[in-house]
Formats: sequence, structure tokens, C-alpha cells
Amino acid sequence: MADKSQRSDVTLDTIVSLCKRRGIIFPGSEIYGGLQGTFDYGPVGAELKRNVKDAWWRAMVQERFDIEGVDSCLLLHPSVWEASGHVENFTDPLCDSLGPSRKRYRDDHIEDTECTLYRTVDVTDEEPKAIEGGEIWAPTKKKAKEFYQTWWEKHLGLEGRRVKLEEVEGSTTVGRFSPDDGGKLTAARMFNLMLSTTVGPVEDSSARVYLRPETAQGIFINYESARATARRKLPFGLAQQGKSFRNEITPRNFIFRTREFEQMEMEFFCKPAEYCQDGEQTDMEWFDFWRNERLEWYVRYGIRRENLKFYDHPKEKLSHYSRGTTDIEYLYPIGWQELEGVAHRGVFDLTQHMEHSGRDLRYFDPQVEKHYLPCVIEPAAGTDRAVLAFLCDAYREEVVRRADEGKGGKESKRVVLGLHKDLAPIKAAVLPLLQNRPDLVEMARKIATDLKRFTNAVYDDTGAIGKLYRRQDEIGTPYCITVDVDSLEDHAVTVRDRDTMEQERIPADKIAGWIRNNLAG
Amino acid sequence: MADKSQRSDVTLDTIVSLCKRRGIIFPGSEIYGGLQGTFDYGPVGAELKRNVKDAWWRAMVQERFDIEGVDSCLLLHPSVWEASGHVENFTDPLCDSLGPSRKRYRDDHIEDTECTLYRTVDVTDEEPKAIEGGEIWAPTKKKAKEFYQTWWEKHLGLEGRRVKLEEVEGSTTVGRFSPDDGGKLTAARMFNLMLSTTVGPVEDSSARVYLRPETAQGIFINYESARATARRKLPFGLAQQGKSFRNEITPRNFIFRTREFEQMEMEFFCKPAEYCQDGEQTDMEWFDFWRNERLEWYVRYGIRRENLKFYDHPKEKLSHYSRGTTDIEYLYPIGWQELEGVAHRGVFDLTQHMEHSGRDLRYFDPQVEKHYLPCVIEPAAGTDRAVLAFLCDAYREEVVRRADEGKGGKESKRVVLGLHKDLAPIKAAVLPLLQNRPDLVEMARKIATDLKRFTNAVYDDTGAIGKLYRRQDEIGTPYCITVDVDSLEDHAVTVRDRDTMEQERIPADKIAGWIRNNLAG
Repeated sequence: MADKSQRSDVTLDTIVSLCKRRGIIFPGSEIYGGLQGTFDYGPVGAELKRNVKDAWWRAMVQERFDIEGVDSCLLLHPSVWEASGHVENFTDPLCDSLGPSRKRYRDDHIEDTECTLYRTVDVTDEEPKAIEGGEIWAPTKKKAKEFYQTWWEKHLGLEGRRVKLEEVEGSTTVGRFSPDDGGKLTAARMFNLMLSTTVGPVEDSSARVYLRPETAQGIFINYESARATARRKLPFGLAQQGKSFRNEITPRNFIFRTREFEQMEMEFFCKPAEYCQDGEQTDMEWFDFWRNERLEWYVRYGIRRENLKFYDHPKEKLSHYSRGTTDIEYLYPIGWQELEGVAHRGVFDLTQHMEHSGRDLRYFDPQVEKHYLPCVIEPAAGTDRAVLAFLCDAYREEVVRRADEGKGGKESKRVVLGLHKDLAPIKAAVLPLLQNRPDLVEMARKIATDLKRFTNAVYDDTGAIGKLYRRQDEIGTPYCITVDVDSLEDHAVTVRDRDTMEQERIPADKIAGWIRNNLAG
Repeated sequence: MADKSQRSDVTLDTIVSLCKRRGIIFPGSEIYGGLQGTFDYGPVGAELKRNVKDAWWRAMVQERFDIEGVDSCLLLHPSVWEASGHVENFTDPLCDSLGPSRKRYRDDHIEDTECTLYRTVDVTDEEPKAIEGGEIWAPTKKKAKEFYQTWWEKHLGLEGRRVKLEEVEGSTTVGRFSPDDGGKLTAARMFNLMLSTTVGPVEDSSARVYLRPETAQGIFINYESARATARRKLPFGLAQQGKSFRNEITPRNFIFRTREFEQMEMEFFCKPAEYCQDGEQTDMEWFDFWRNERLEWYVRYGIRRENLKFYDHPKEKLSHYSRGTTDIEYLYPIGWQELEGVAHRGVFDLTQHMEHSGRDLRYFDPQVEKHYLPCVIEPAAGTDRAVLAFLCDAYREEVVRRADEGKGGKESKRVVLGLHKDLAPIKAAVLPLLQNRPDLVEMARKIATDLKRFTNAVYDDTGAIGKLYRRQDEIGTPYCITVDVDSLEDHAVTVRDRDTMEQERIPADKIAGWIRNNLAG
């Protein structure tokens, strides 16, 4: 595996800009100045996200014999989050700047810095005077001046006075200071990341519920009902997709870390090793299976293997109940980051829910004639992170020299999203070469109508053919079908392949079948 | 259209019980005693709901030339709900009982009742004494006693005392009283139905956001970005599916009225009549179009036409901006109720968002060379209400007499969900007649594997064939495929049709194609 930690082929800005230009992803509530940590999917992005979710569902539910789907509410009983430990432990350590910005930080993202103390001195009068409360910690005097101008000047209220900054000799020290205003930082306090709301007609604390911070608990609480109605024996899994919410202190990196996001989680319930018969897979074997299976899923849908790797959490950092946790990391433009987590959660969650709910959630194993709780292996993927990974991996820029593609045979740049066909938002675009020929338009629309019966095809006549090709390339449409004047004579159309740009002439009455076969293949 | 207002063929209890028995829908957070107004979809229900959503998306986005999808956040900027009027107007009038229950009611659901005042008299001592605060209003003395025993006794704190209820003569009056404890009701106050939460690290009012009470506003705020990137001219629509939340005071009737629910909404932007050229459809024509189109969608997916009707809101009850609103009603077991609303919203929403955001949302019409706001026609469907309608309409009970279906030729009852094939949670079930014959099991699993490549098929060997048929009938599986001992000889299997129960022998290597064709047909 390559040991690079940065990508040279694509930046996050490039992807953000493409997403905005082509209606893939917009900042949330943009016309109102935005709502931090939220993003909306536009027409092209809504299809892309649907396709990612469908591909996951197909691989994780439809194609398997041992997994069922469920769809639980976002609002769950408050006891669920007591049992799961989220009320107590789903927290971030935060600290505040004592400087005038009052900014709040993730304490574990703050590093000790060497700073010097600068004092603010009023030099308006003959007798210079140090200003109370005007002490700024900064790595350099230049930075101190910057902090002064951005925050302290207003804060100290010194209109009409002249001040200078003066180093306090011998004050240089290593410590925790705000990188924004040079204030000292408070000690960390724990801050729960769950969003809460109040349901029912009366606003009292008994009606306080949380917006789920993960979809997993909605699976655990339905485990017994789902198992019983689906008449399942171990091992089997329950899969779910849906929105989750986390009050991230610093949402950032586009759709990588947001406050509202979508998850695709599966809980696989299997026998602890001590109850396995000969030939049955143990919990650790299932853990290994799902680690690999999930990585291969990304490869199956087009992510280059060299951009994926495992990060195994070190044993000493695992939760007490976990026998292993592996992150599947992807080489985002911001570096290697978690794309999906696969965790061996032991019997923790069901034990907790059994205790807190008083329901017997144990499985009766007829082979060993015992009741016990199954182990759980959890592959948990972020849908938005997957969308971002697919976008980054599919993005490429090429130099085109073809006369019919470039500008009169001259070189030109082409941006292509080389998405897997199953993920491509639009599968085929039907483009009439002339918009003002009704017979040609009619033929093109008829073909598009035929295609729309089974796939997401579009008809587009809003530009010259070169421009239309570029648009479809940029959103990853595998096939463009052009209808030209000859088509009226020879009843054939031209299909252009997104990746090779090769063109093929196909009889008009065969085109729907051709597209269907090529999409399936 | 039949003028019946009740259904005799199916009750809500029957559907609720089927849903629980077969893993279609469970009460939310059931193991913790439930969370009122929430429901979780089990394995079978999750597929049914997915299919309903896919069918809507297919009809409303994929098959059309003039509609794009979007997918906005649940959390939107607070100004969105100021602009839309929800902060001010999305309220229910509530009143409280002044009796000890302190129960809260939808004021408009309370009817004036004739009640008599009963006073509570302490008769422990020789001198009977009326008890202060012990006045109960009730329609009958029997009811007053009931109220006393349920609420007032505890409330008055009269341990060890003997009391009697005594009618206050001449007190009978018509008024507003609690039906639960006979307390007088307060005047109505308005109560906002939106759920709110706080985002960001600091809990102040500026960070208060609402969980969307409808998906529509997420479309309006993305209207201009979506239109521009999709290069759309009027008329065109934007469609969205997703969760919405309403703090219903009395969630009830299973998934009909819940606090968390799913919507499928489309906003169709079209030219106001005054800007239409010859031959262009006007806003009112589009309104009529969508009324009919949406009703036909339910018919297309199997709802009997006689169970659907239009309810046109009377002109005088329309919002000032609306030129028409029609409910598509379905004859639920609880009577005719709104399944979907189709509303002509005029230019209201875009006007509001333009004013509140300061963004120019007007459309430039090159034909008339003018900027103006489009009219909006909104078909808004509730996904859960659609699921409930499809379940009710598909449910039937039959008497079976066939030897191979009933118990040795005797009559037996069969419950069938006659769902449209596209909506059926499972499309085909492969059932080996003997579970203990490895060659037979292997053949059955191979067939199931082939089917799972393109559709949601299952393999089931957890019971006798009659029982397995019943299970699949109850969840609406169109085809059951049995593999028997003869199959090993003649390489053929038996396909049983859910509705006719007819059986057909098909070569094993043709079965995948047969199923594929029959599902498409």
C-alpha cells in the first residue's frame, strides 16, 4: 500500500466547486446565509446518494440470505440512550478562550504552544500605563498585533487612545492558548453531542427525547421482534439506513463532518466462540469477514484499492467490551480518514438493553440447549462520507484532442466523473443535434421516453453538443445518445461512451436494449 | 362513487395485528414501553415502505421529463420557518382541564356537553360538610363517581374519610368539560406543533432550530439553485422524500397520525395564466392535472378506485394565497380520511422566501421578457398513510378448499395481502419441500441466489409447506417456488401464484427468467 498521505490529483475545493456548479450538493439553507454543518443534495446529488444507498442495500440485504432490513424512528425512548451509554459518555471535551472571542474548542484538538505574554500599554499620555485585562499570549509579536486588531481593541474600548504592545520579559512558556485571540484556555468540560427535543403537549423534562446520534440503537431495540417475526437463527444481521445527528463543535471539510448526516449500519448477531459447533464461524471470524467484505464493497463500486486501507484500533484503546475495531480509511483530499468503522461490540448493547428494559433478549440455542446473548459485529458506514469518497475517486481531468470533442481539434480540458454505472446519477442522456427540427426532437424524446421506463435517462437540448457532452461528463453519465439529421434517414443514433469517448452507431429500435444490457454488464 | 363511510371488510385492529405478527410495523421503542406517536418498520415493512417510496420516485421523477429530485436537511435555518409562516401559524388550539388530571386537549376536538355539577360531601362526621375544590362536572352521576374514583379521591387527599357525591340542583348546563375528569376546561391557547432543538456549542436562543414539519420548505429554499444548475425553464417540478415531525397532541390510529412520519412532496413551478402563450398549460390546468395524476398513481399501484375520492376544500376556507386545495381521501377502516393533499399555493412561498432572504427568486421569462414568480402546485403525500392505505386495500380473507393448500381438503381460512407486485416486500420465496435433503436444499438455495441477483427473493425452510405458503400470502409475496424430490429428476420446480393459487411446473434453468418477466409484466 502506498504510504502517501496526501492526494495530488484532486482537492476538496475542486469537488466542492463541481458539486455546486452541477447541482450535486449545496450548502444547507444557503439563501439564508447557511446553517453550519448542514448540506442539501441537489438534483444530481439526490440521485447519486440514492444510488449509493441502493447499492449498499442490495449488497447488505437483498443479495444476502442472512440479513433483514429495518427502519426505526429517529425519536427513540430516552431510556435507549441511557442504556447505550450515550447520555453519559457521548461527549466531547470542550474548553473556552478567556480572551474576548470567547471561542470554544475541542480540547483534544488543542496542542500546547510556546507563547509569550504581551501587555497592552496606553501611550497616549506622557506616563505610559499598562491596561488591565489587556494581556495577550501569542507565538510572535506579529500574531499578538493581529489578535489585538481583531478582538482586543474592541474589547478594551480604547477609542481615541494610542496603545502599543510590549513583551513581558521572561514570560515565554509552553501552554494552552486560543489560536484565535491569544486568550488562555479554560480546563476542559464534557459536552454531550446529542441534540434533544421535547415531545408531547407539556414541556417538562420527562418529555425530553434525543435525536438519534446513530442508527444502531434503533436496530438493537427491535432485535427481538425482528428476529422472532423473521424466524431467524444465529447468525443473522439487521440493516438500517437513515439520518443521524451530532452536535459537532466544529463541523468541517464539506460533507465529511456535519451535524446532520446519513448512516448505513448493520448489526450482525452471531454465536460467541464457546457456543459454536464444528464448522460454524466464530464471532472473530465474522469480524474478519465483515472487515474484508466492507472494504471490497467500495472496490466493487469503483474505489481504487490503493486509496483504501485498514486502521486497526490498538487493543489498549478499545472499549472494555470490544474485541476489535477497524476503520476502513479512504485517502480523501484532506488525508487518510475514516470512511467506515467495523466494530466487534461483544454482548454489550444487548446486555445493556436487557438490563434497562427488563426484557429477556437472550437467544435460545437448541444445539447447546442454552440461553445466551449473541455477539455483535457492526459495519457502520457514513452515507455522505461514502458519497464524498466516490466523488473524489471518480474525479479526473483529461486533455482532449478529438475534433468532435475539443474545440475544432485543439486541445481542451475535460472533467470526467468516472463513476461506477450503478452509482451514476443519470445513466443516459439523449441529445438532439438540432433543437429547431421538430422531427429530430420528437425522435429524441421518444427514445428518452423508452429509456425512462427502466432507468434514469434525461433529454437535453439546452446547448451545443460539445457543451452537452461536457455537462454529462462532469456528472458521470455513462452514455450520451445523439440524434442527428442522418438519424431520420438511417433510423440509427450515435452512442458515446463517457470513458473512451468512442462512438458507436446503433439502430434506434435497438437502443433501449443496448443501454439496458450495457448498464447491467 | 359509493357513499359508504365505513368498511366492513377490514378493521384497523386486524391490520395492526397482522403488522405485528409478520414484522411489518412495530410500536416505536416497544421494549421500553413505547414512545407515543412513533412506529418502527420491521423486516417486511421496511421493504414495503422502500417499495412505496421507489414507486413514487419512479412516477414523479424518473419517468417524467419535467421533474428533478432534491434531498434537503431536516434542520433548516430558523428564518425558513419565519418566512413560511410556521412559527406564527403552525399551531393547534389547546385547552387544559382544571380538574386533577390536568389533561390537555385539542380545543377544536372538544364538543359542548350537557353536564351537572356534583359536589363532594364529607359524611364521616355527623355534620356533613361540602369539600372545597371537590366539584365535578359530569353528564351522569355514574360518570361523576367514576371521575371521583379515578382522579378526585387521590387529589382531595381524604384518606379514612367517607364521602358522597351530591347533585347541585339547577346546575345542569351546556359547556366545555374534560371528558376524563369532569373538570372545567380553560380557554384555548395556541401551541406550536414544531419540535425544536438547539445546535452549536452554546445553548442560546440564536441556536434554536426546528425539526421540519414538512419537506416542502426544503424544496423552496433550493428552488433557485436547483433550477439554475438543472437549466430548467417553467414549468418544472422538484420532488423530495423524507422525515418530518409534528408534535401532535393526540397521535392515534396506528401510523395514520404520528409525531414522526415520512412525506413525499413535489412542488411544481408553473406560469401564472397571464404569462402563458397559446397552447401552454395554465396554473389551474396544472392543478387539475396533478389532482388526477396523483389519484391515478394510487390506482396504478392497486388501490380500488371506489376507495378513493376527492374532497375539494370550499373556497371560503382556503388560505388567502391558494386558488384551490383538494384532498385525495381514502376509505380507511376509520372512515374517509386524507391520504394526500394537492394544493395550488400561488406565489406565496417564493414571495415569502424572497422577502425574508433578500434573494431575487423571480424567473426570467424570455418569451414575455419579464421577471416574475411562478405559481406552485403541490401534491403532498404521507408515506406512512400510503403504506396504511396499500395494506388495507390489499388485505383479504378467503376460504380455501384445495387439498394441497388447506388441511387435507378441508376448508380453511387464508389471509392474503394482494399487493401490487412492485410493492410486494418479497417478490419470490423459494421453499424446499424437505429440509433434511441436502441435494434439495442446495438446489433451492441456488435458485434463490440467482433470483437475489435482481430481486428481493428469500429462501425459507423453517416449516411445513402449507405454513410457509400462509406466511408468504400474509405478506403478499406474488410467487412461491417449491423444490421437491421430483425436481432432482426432472430439473423443474413448481411456481404457485399468490392470487389464483394455481401451480405451474417450470424448468429450473428457466425460473429466474420466468420470475423476471412476470414481475415486469
